[in-house]
Amino acid sequence: MTTIIDGKQLAKDLNAQTKDRVASLAQRGIVPGLAVIIVGDDPASAIYVRNKHKKAGQLGINSVVRQLPATISQADLLQVVTEYNQDPAIHGILVQSPLPAGLDEQAVVAHIDPAKDVDGFHPLNVGRLFANLPGHHPVSCTPRGIMTMLDSLHTHLRGKHAVVVGRSMIVGRPMASMLLNADMTVSVAHVYTKDLSALTQQADVLVVATGVTHLIKETDVKPGAIVIDVGMDRDENGKLTGDVDFDGVVKRAGAITPVPGGVGPMTIATLMQQTVDLCEWSEERGTN
Amino acid sequence: MTTIIDGKQLAKDLNAQTKDRVASLAQRGIVPGLAVIIVGDDPASAIYVRNKHKKAGQLGINSVVRQLPATISQADLLQVVTEYNQDPAIHGILVQSPLPAGLDEQAVVAHIDPAKDVDGFHPLNVGRLFANLPGHHPVSCTPRGIMTMLDSLHTHLRGKHAVVVGRSMIVGRPMASMLLNADMTVSVAHVYTKDLSALTQQADVLVVATGVTHLIKETDVKPGAIVIDVGMDRDENGKLTGDVDFDGVVKRAGAITPVPGGVGPMTIATLMQQTVDLCEWSEERGTN
Repeated sequence: MTTIIDGKQLAKDLNAQTKDRVASLAQRGIVPGLAVIIVGDDPASAIYVRNKHKKAGQLGINSVVRQLPATISQADLLQVVTEYNQDPAIHGILVQSPLPAGLDEQAVVAHIDPAKDVDGFHPLNVGRLFANLPGHHPVSCTPRGIMTMLDSLHTHLRGKHAVVVGRSMIVGRPMASMLLNADMTVSVAHVYTKDLSALTQQADVLVVATGVTHLIKETDVKPGAIVIDVGMDRDENGKLTGDVDFDGVVKRAGAITPVPGGVGPMTIATLMQQTVDLCEWSEERGTN
Repeated sequence: MTTIIDGKQLAKDLNAQTKDRVASLAQRGIVPGLAVIIVGDDPASAIYVRNKHKKAGQLGINSVVRQLPATISQADLLQVVTEYNQDPAIHGILVQSPLPAGLDEQAVVAHIDPAKDVDGFHPLNVGRLFANLPGHHPVSCTPRGIMTMLDSLHTHLRGKHAVVVGRSMIVGRPMASMLLNADMTVSVAHVYTKDLSALTQQADVLVVATGVTHLIKETDVKPGAIVIDVGMDRDENGKLTGDVDFDGVVKRAGAITPVPGGVGPMTIATLMQQTVDLCEWSEERGTN
């Protein structure tokens, strides 16, 4: 029997834990604060930001949405980040991607206080993760959510082979870092990889984050593998689907995430979890 | 015919280029400065530091060796780093590893100005490399030297499979970053990897950095592969040898580095190259 990994339920469980932690903090008079900066009027970004804001509110996190005009200068945008860096009521700052043309997103991310970098995209936090340094540091939320999903399977990961398809800084690369830190043998494949199927067939854990609809078919997967589909693609009928051909692969995999209802719900839940982490770590350091 | 990659000659060529760059800088009245901090009296460390100091002198780099007692406090050691961070005549700072027990090496490395981090070990620089960010940043010298060796072969790397055995922050992890940035499919294996040979036999480029004498035998290697041996091991007779069984693997590899005379000489040459890089980048930024 193939396990269908229920991202909705896992996200619900995680959100319940986060809500409890927020309630504990409230008893000490502390409210985690999340600042979401959105520049311009990209409709998809507006939906993402609204969803984050709504979820934060449900959990008792103080979410501040800062809508800025697409015409804002780089200097003025950095100044907004500085404000939140200095605001003790704000524990997590995120800048909704993509920024309008003409703004330097990397420079904006690098300007966020690494201790408030709730997306885990600051190069210092990327380096801490890749170097597997001890101590608290925020990490990219989608792969962290995937690690939570893997934990829920109670599978022994050490020494097994993970194949990550895709090498973005949001999913592929930090995912490879986390799986390597979990003592897995890790292979990273991408658009230039030759004979992708020969590699994916070796994977005990296969994570696919390419944006290519149904790139992975049944014959690309090792029997019994754990298959994690990060894709959020639209099929020819406009229906949401993934990078994995679910109907085929489910016959062979040991466990698989559906799309929708798999990785997607875990990402926002992990963002909320990490906002509360940042608040607690700030308390521990006494910087609040 | 198997190519024996001549690290001594490549290091000599690189040092000649570095010397020319130092001479050009001298015409503008600029001297690259390297500060090497050594704590305690580990004999191996003393040899490494002496070699670096000597090579720097030969190339016209101003090398300052700061010998500190093993009894120095963490705070005093950080203060020495701060001095060099603030010294405009110093462009590269390195703290010879290992530090005596009781000193926090990671905290010392993180205290080095990232713009003077000549070893490329600061987590900010680790993150910049792993994220493949544009712009100048120092990187770990041994894997950078290996990339120079691979360049010398004029081989097409994109899309081919690299296997890195070992995941240290000095070699394995930054090596994997650089090979991924070169558009290779990259696998990282380590002490927990099951069936290592099945993986190494897939490698078009195999980099071995484990410290396990002759871990890799002829049958572990794909015919025609490029094999890079980072090992500096002693065999039963006390003779210097590598992680690769050279006499066996040379029969099958397309190209291979010997030990000694392979990767070793490239590391110091790359350190010198990177010291001059840091000096030039500092000039470009106008921070000198």
